[in-house]
Amino acid sequence: MEDERKLEESMAEMSVDEAKEAKKKAKAEAKAAKAAKAAAKAAAATEKGKKKTKLGLSVTKEENFGDWYSEIVTEAELISYYDVSGCYILRPWAYAIWEELKAFFDGEIKKLGVENCYFPMFVPESNLIKEKDHVEGFAPEVAWVTKSGDTDLDVPIAVRPTSETVMYPYYADWIRSHRDLPLKLNQWCNVVRWEFKHPTPFIRSREFLWQEGHTAYATKAEADEEVKQILDLYRRIFEDLLCVPVIPGVKSEKEKFAGGLYTTTVEAYVPANGRAIQGATSHCLGQNFAKMFGIEFETEERARALVWQNSWGFTTRTIGVMVMVHGDDKGLVLPPKVAPLQVVVIPLPFKGCDSSVLVGAAEELTAELKAAGLRVRCDARENYTPGWKYNHWELKGVPLRIELGPKDLEQRSARFVRRDNGAKEDVSWQRLVEQARCTLEQVQKDLLDRATKERDQNVVEVRNWEDFLPALDAKKLVLAPWCEETAVEEWVKANSAGGDGAMGAKTLCIPFKQPALPEGTMCFAAPDKPAKRWTLWGRSY
Amino acid sequence: MEDERKLEESMAEMSVDEAKEAKKKAKAEAKAAKAAKAAAKAAAATEKGKKKTKLGLSVTKEENFGDWYSEIVTEAELISYYDVSGCYILRPWAYAIWEELKAFFDGEIKKLGVENCYFPMFVPESNLIKEKDHVEGFAPEVAWVTKSGDTDLDVPIAVRPTSETVMYPYYADWIRSHRDLPLKLNQWCNVVRWEFKHPTPFIRSREFLWQEGHTAYATKAEADEEVKQILDLYRRIFEDLLCVPVIPGVKSEKEKFAGGLYTTTVEAYVPANGRAIQGATSHCLGQNFAKMFGIEFETEERARALVWQNSWGFTTRTIGVMVMVHGDDKGLVLPPKVAPLQVVVIPLPFKGCDSSVLVGAAEELTAELKAAGLRVRCDARENYTPGWKYNHWELKGVPLRIELGPKDLEQRSARFVRRDNGAKEDVSWQRLVEQARCTLEQVQKDLLDRATKERDQNVVEVRNWEDFLPALDAKKLVLAPWCEETAVEEWVKANSAGGDGAMGAKTLCIPFKQPALPEGTMCFAAPDKPAKRWTLWGRSY
Repeated sequence: MEDERKLEESMAEMSVDEAKEAKKKAKAEAKAAKAAKAAAKAAAATEKGKKKTKLGLSVTKEENFGDWYSEIVTEAELISYYDVSGCYILRPWAYAIWEELKAFFDGEIKKLGVENCYFPMFVPESNLIKEKDHVEGFAPEVAWVTKSGDTDLDVPIAVRPTSETVMYPYYADWIRSHRDLPLKLNQWCNVVRWEFKHPTPFIRSREFLWQEGHTAYATKAEADEEVKQILDLYRRIFEDLLCVPVIPGVKSEKEKFAGGLYTTTVEAYVPANGRAIQGATSHCLGQNFAKMFGIEFETEERARALVWQNSWGFTTRTIGVMVMVHGDDKGLVLPPKVAPLQVVVIPLPFKGCDSSVLVGAAEELTAELKAAGLRVRCDARENYTPGWKYNHWELKGVPLRIELGPKDLEQRSARFVRRDNGAKEDVSWQRLVEQARCTLEQVQKDLLDRATKERDQNVVEVRNWEDFLPALDAKKLVLAPWCEETAVEEWVKANSAGGDGAMGAKTLCIPFKQPALPEGTMCFAAPDKPAKRWTLWGRSY
Repeated sequence: MEDERKLEESMAEMSVDEAKEAKKKAKAEAKAAKAAKAAAKAAAATEKGKKKTKLGLSVTKEENFGDWYSEIVTEAELISYYDVSGCYILRPWAYAIWEELKAFFDGEIKKLGVENCYFPMFVPESNLIKEKDHVEGFAPEVAWVTKSGDTDLDVPIAVRPTSETVMYPYYADWIRSHRDLPLKLNQWCNVVRWEFKHPTPFIRSREFLWQEGHTAYATKAEADEEVKQILDLYRRIFEDLLCVPVIPGVKSEKEKFAGGLYTTTVEAYVPANGRAIQGATSHCLGQNFAKMFGIEFETEERARALVWQNSWGFTTRTIGVMVMVHGDDKGLVLPPKVAPLQVVVIPLPFKGCDSSVLVGAAEELTAELKAAGLRVRCDARENYTPGWKYNHWELKGVPLRIELGPKDLEQRSARFVRRDNGAKEDVSWQRLVEQARCTLEQVQKDLLDRATKERDQNVVEVRNWEDFLPALDAKKLVLAPWCEETAVEEWVKANSAGGDGAMGAKTLCIPFKQPALPEGTMCFAAPDKPAKRWTLWGRSY
């Protein structure tokens, strides 16, 4: 689970001094966030005075991607900054997206026979430290409860950063015989990783929501199969729901989950800054945790054996990736399948025209769409102009706007406007439901197609070290033949950090889908070593 | 929210020494729990050796209710004890029940326009202490995070015991105008209350799951109406889903939510020990928190006004109440609407009869029931006897068992056996689905009817102090005319504690449904004071 975040963490391997510096920065940031909040409050108050408020974003995605992102997640009411630095409030607009992702994934894993449960969030230190590699990955960012009321606890208790060490002592109790296998549990919960690096809404926060699946099998073959099944569900979350293309593959030894056997991942790409971002990971833990926690069973042949385990998780980070990939200078662009609101109907009353008839018709159309199962709302508020409403719902990313003016009323039609590309179409009331469905499907498809095309244009094959840095600097992901030696991986990272503060490149994954690798191909970064496979590299979150 | 637990907490108002004693006890208990776990493990190992295991409970509900409860929740695999004292693992059998309750309530509040969201679980101290009465109610049991990794935090951060102080600073930001109202948010999450009193699975644990709704209105009338709507949903959770009758009413001033205006509650009754138990609470907070957190809005008339707020919650405690009310000496008795498995089909192969045909038929019937939307499983495992399976599924509380033997096969019928009353019926395959549905509905109805009858028999009207203690000692809830003075309430509590360690009685609620109160009726406990309303009293969890 841990390398859900690991990529980002090792972004800069900090010395003690650097860590101190980072902490100072985090504090300054918290202060700044507070100040920003106060300013926003003041601004809101002023705006209220002005009555008509300027909507939209103050900075474009191209000119300052970081600021654009901070602004869009707050202005579109996905997130509010919170008094505790690195923690964020998931507002209803974000949480409803999370509910869609949950509903999909929860249904799919239940089909696979996974059962939901809930384990405590507190971990005794003695369990936390049982698996050495594992704890090393987490120790620096574990939050410790040491007091209740005014009383010191006898022993400090950790807040789960992930639940391997919470759950597996009990797996050892519950699993006795091959008949108790497979054991497939999942939980939806919060976890805490007290990082001191730059927090980013959705992408890196000190508390976040996720699901974590933890399964145990009698054989490696079964475990291997599940790792792939789950990874494919993660691929579907990104591609089929969020319209974000991902590259599935396996992590390098250096980047795999601490304590596990191997890690599979889906990797996404953010065109605006050329950075890669880990989407979700599905780990085969092998028998390592089984050994540490004594998870044994009696085989059919009455022998003792260790179980084979997997763990897998995806987090609210998914939402941030979607925002980064699809959002534009007007605001969010939400894929219809996850949009809390898929359609907004806006009546356009004209002077001298009976607005009650118009509003009545708009409400009827809304009811019809709702009855057909679409998530739709009629915005007939009188205290806002149509222009304000257009901006507002564009900022919120609603995929389809339906306008209804006096002329439309006359012609018993309505005007469809797509959020993603602004395309307009007049649709007769008779075809309203059918066409709304069809348009939403088209939007869903087009968003993925466009993002895939853009991503594909930005993955380049590189065979030599000389071509590597220029490609990175041109915001590309790089597919390169690699010898799969950790020393070379570390050398590449060290030597690809730019003088201008650009971070070093890491391996993202060894993609399952491999271009041909002619015999004799050498490693792009160590020309004296034979390449084993094509590997995807990038500067990453 | 706090008095979700408050009743229990004030059970014994502890002195410092008593608190220390309680802590010692809690520690001893944790040790005992560990030892019990080890013993259970050893026992399991031995049993496995014996191959045929003794199923069922070692103690009856009547002879030792406390032990029976501890045993049933673990044996039926609802709960596992956990290494951190007062924390429990919710196993899939319990969590699936929780999912049913969630699905119902979540759907209903969404119909009311409530939106889900997620706030951080960490509270800065400065916010936590803003409302004085409120913080006093919680301070002794707040868990504090003081370290991350090896580093001390600059300021300790509380883990939410409830989220009023987490959320309301942001309500103050978001609410500006009457047009921003009502604001209706809810979250499903974990909370922590580090109590040192005797923990009990589901009923009192240091971490538990709940939903907490937090709403803000422009007028008191709207807030009042919602308090009742939500309370009625809680009543439906208990009565319509869990088959546990409850008495809705309002809390006394002493027992209301700390910092709120008034608290409504649904109160349940546990016949086995005669104790009352608070089911769930819906609070009107009035304008007190609004004042403390500055939640103001501009009215339509352009005046400034404070919002009216509610908060309301129900927890996993609901499951424990259901277990206590319906469970018997064979195990759980689950109401069909919340049972993870509603029907178990068991083929009964006979010697000399082709078991594959029998099993095939059982699986077909299972598929038919599943297709009709029932939660059903065919238990055709060959390594267990039918008798073992009967015991197993009775222990787990599955409402309906369907047996299929060779004779049934011949007659194209199956035998239905109800878990709640053991009633048997032969049903032809043709009527299988229809009859299964009908039987489950009947079980649902009968469970509530039986529990209601039993509860009603144990609520007695008492007009004089002399009759009060005998009724309590006979395990009754007492409805008595009361003057509604806190001093009298405290006097009753002090004077109803039995010498044998029986706790004092508290007010449970002033029921909405009031018997006639003839003019001139005096308080049962203070005969010189006129009674105001009938009030429900009891020894309670």
